[in-house]
Amino acid sequence: MRIREAVLTPVAFADPPLLNAMGVHEPYALRSVVQLVGEDGVTGLGESYGDEGFLAQARKVAEQLPGWDVFDLPGLRRIVERVVGETVHTDLHGLTGGFSVGKTLASVYALFEVAALDAQGRLLGRPVYDLLGGRVRDEVEFSAYLFYKFGAHLGAAGDDWGEVLTPEALVGQARRMVGTYGFRSLKLKGGVLPPEQETEAVRALAGAFPGHPLRIDPNGAWTPDTAIRVAHALDGVLEYLEDPTPGTAGMARVAARAPMPLATNMCVVRFADLEPAVRARAVGVVLSDHHFWGGLRDTQALSVACRSFGIGLSMHSNSHLGISLAAMVHVAAATEHLSYACDTHWPWKESDVIAPGALEFRDGAVRVPDGPGLGVELDPDALARAHETYLRCGLTQRDDTGYMRRYVGASSFRPHTERW
Amino acid sequence: MRIREAVLTPVAFADPPLLNAMGVHEPYALRSVVQLVGEDGVTGLGESYGDEGFLAQARKVAEQLPGWDVFDLPGLRRIVERVVGETVHTDLHGLTGGFSVGKTLASVYALFEVAALDAQGRLLGRPVYDLLGGRVRDEVEFSAYLFYKFGAHLGAAGDDWGEVLTPEALVGQARRMVGTYGFRSLKLKGGVLPPEQETEAVRALAGAFPGHPLRIDPNGAWTPDTAIRVAHALDGVLEYLEDPTPGTAGMARVAARAPMPLATNMCVVRFADLEPAVRARAVGVVLSDHHFWGGLRDTQALSVACRSFGIGLSMHSNSHLGISLAAMVHVAAATEHLSYACDTHWPWKESDVIAPGALEFRDGAVRVPDGPGLGVELDPDALARAHETYLRCGLTQRDDTGYMRRYVGASSFRPHTERW
Ligand SMILES: [Mg+2]
Ligand SMILES: [Mg+2]
Repeated sequence: MRIREAVLTPVAFADPPLLNAMGVHEPYALRSVVQLVGEDGVTGLGESYGDEGFLAQARKVAEQLPGWDVFDLPGLRRIVERVVGETVHTDLHGLTGGFSVGKTLASVYALFEVAALDAQGRLLGRPVYDLLGGRVRDEVEFSAYLFYKFGAHLGAAGDDWGEVLTPEALVGQARRMVGTYGFRSLKLKGGVLPPEQETEAVRALAGAFPGHPLRIDPNGAWTPDTAIRVAHALDGVLEYLEDPTPGTAGMARVAARAPMPLATNMCVVRFADLEPAVRARAVGVVLSDHHFWGGLRDTQALSVACRSFGIGLSMHSNSHLGISLAAMVHVAAATEHLSYACDTHWPWKESDVIAPGALEFRDGAVRVPDGPGLGVELDPDALARAHETYLRCGLTQRDDTGYMRRYVGASSFRPHTERW
Repeated sequence: MRIREAVLTPVAFADPPLLNAMGVHEPYALRSVVQLVGEDGVTGLGESYGDEGFLAQARKVAEQLPGWDVFDLPGLRRIVERVVGETVHTDLHGLTGGFSVGKTLASVYALFEVAALDAQGRLLGRPVYDLLGGRVRDEVEFSAYLFYKFGAHLGAAGDDWGEVLTPEALVGQARRMVGTYGFRSLKLKGGVLPPEQETEAVRALAGAFPGHPLRIDPNGAWTPDTAIRVAHALDGVLEYLEDPTPGTAGMARVAARAPMPLATNMCVVRFADLEPAVRARAVGVVLSDHHFWGGLRDTQALSVACRSFGIGLSMHSNSHLGISLAAMVHVAAATEHLSYACDTHWPWKESDVIAPGALEFRDGAVRVPDGPGLGVELDPDALARAHETYLRCGLTQRDDTGYMRRYVGASSFRPHTERW
């Protein structure tokens, strides 16, 4: 099926003031939505980043797509390579590791690959998981993504999650999230408070949720020595320790001494990062993310590569909407080697661009939709509203650090990379 | 689409007395052909080994397939695991490395996976390469597979390829094969004569075919020291040196000193073999083979893993018929990282089970069939004849060593593993 038009729509949705090592989430999260409209009217959906730099590349690719056949994924790769060239897309937060031509290509390609697979599936009357080798599991388990947070955005009224800066408040947040969604694994976004306080918070979670697997992700806020100290303090408590320190060498130092596996979505973010990480024995778990790993098929290939080298696989999440969740669920459903519950920011959003009902959490898991393609439908009015929000909010790129400086004063905040 | 019946047919076809480190090819090569017949009559084709041990496992799986949905490849894997259990399929020649439960499961699974993908493609009206991510190339390049050979089978008249035991005769064989098929790369199956003679033969090929990439594969017939000596003698002549010596440690010793990459289909034959080979830097090229690497999808995953670790990819061949060639062509067509022309025994056979015309060699390459599924059709009469040949020939497993002993006397031949 040839493409008549590729419609790219930047959207925004309200996001609470969630804290991380780089700063604090702004009032709106940005995403891009693509609709690949085929000559026969079948449409494929994709979703990815909404930063202006990413959108600029995606828009140039979208312009080249009329006439392209949705089954010709190698042709898509060639178009993306031609259009993106040597451009390196960067962001201001670096929460998914370094920037490179390869990662830029993989990210732009992924947006359209997902939409192409959705279109293929709709055309063939098969769910995307069937195009990925069939369904290994009927439902995909997710983890609760717990955040320290401010009680309100600047100049705004408080949100109903409230301020969360203590172990007690965090346990409260976890109780609400577990109560609503049924999550088993609990992940704390760390790198916000001194490691002693975050260790105490993890211990509080362990006490309040016995038997629940726990994770903490300080996004490289610790030195290797601090990371080793925390790892020993949380021995027997964490299922894995995520990006405690930046860089392959530092991770390897920690990995050699930590009693639990180290996970990463910062030091292994491209296939080219695997070899140095394997040789240094730096990571025990890779957090896949189809948005920057080159789409659903390459995410599966990553899984096989990881299994071959004794590395576990989990799944990373950025703030996202329902198209991305559907893509995550399909690739997870079709990927045998997926060792842990996947991350998702899902509970932190209040609106979406897809029609409700296709993706529901029950006991911490999402049942895999078995309709054609991704199994979700765009809600045109919701998309229009989200685009309207994008235009109105005035944000064009995610800047957690800049926003934090508006809270605390321009000179008084630096990202926490290896701060402690 | 649910399967109504899985029909497994052992077949045999005439094979010349080709020599290798283990002995000599018997008068007939054995294969298995599977037909997955769907409830709606759509059929999927697969082809693999014909040894009795393999057939026994495949037959047990085939009996379990009625009712199974051809899109449910994870379900196929479960059936194969349940049926095969801890069985280790061995063969008498060991030309594709060691035996293991994992390799047995991957081999049995692969036979049916290919047939399932063929059935999927026919059902959806799409070529198999589309189910594998789309066509990267329009044609797939193959290498000429040159063999030392006897002039005739025991008790039989000479074949028209004649005896080939000298550089001159080998160049003659190559001229005929290149003339008929247009091959560029030339591969010599070595491990037959002392390495000095095989080195001389490669030099003769280099002289007669300037600019043609050359390979030699002694199937581990040399010690590491001999391999290093030959590697230096053929510096600038070989594109790669294939399995010069057995085992990862020996290969690593040679790889550290050889001026060209080492290729293997003996020391890396399962995903579990990748890590030791990578850590030891033992191989530069993996020769994939969907028949024992778990089918077409896992062959693609192998390609991505190899690319990630800077390892080239080529393709191994056993004696095969047209269904296997079609499968090789489709996976090669859909696999971006394929660094070399693929091996094939195609020119050595005179009959097939598929209708002629779908797969033609031109300039050493096969154009990728773009009909639904694998794009080849079974010829029922040819299949019946090949099955008749299987029954009549009396062979039930490949035994190159036993057959060689019938030529030269039982006590006077041992496989050439590390002989020189
Ligand atoms: Mg992370
Ligand atoms: Mg070989």
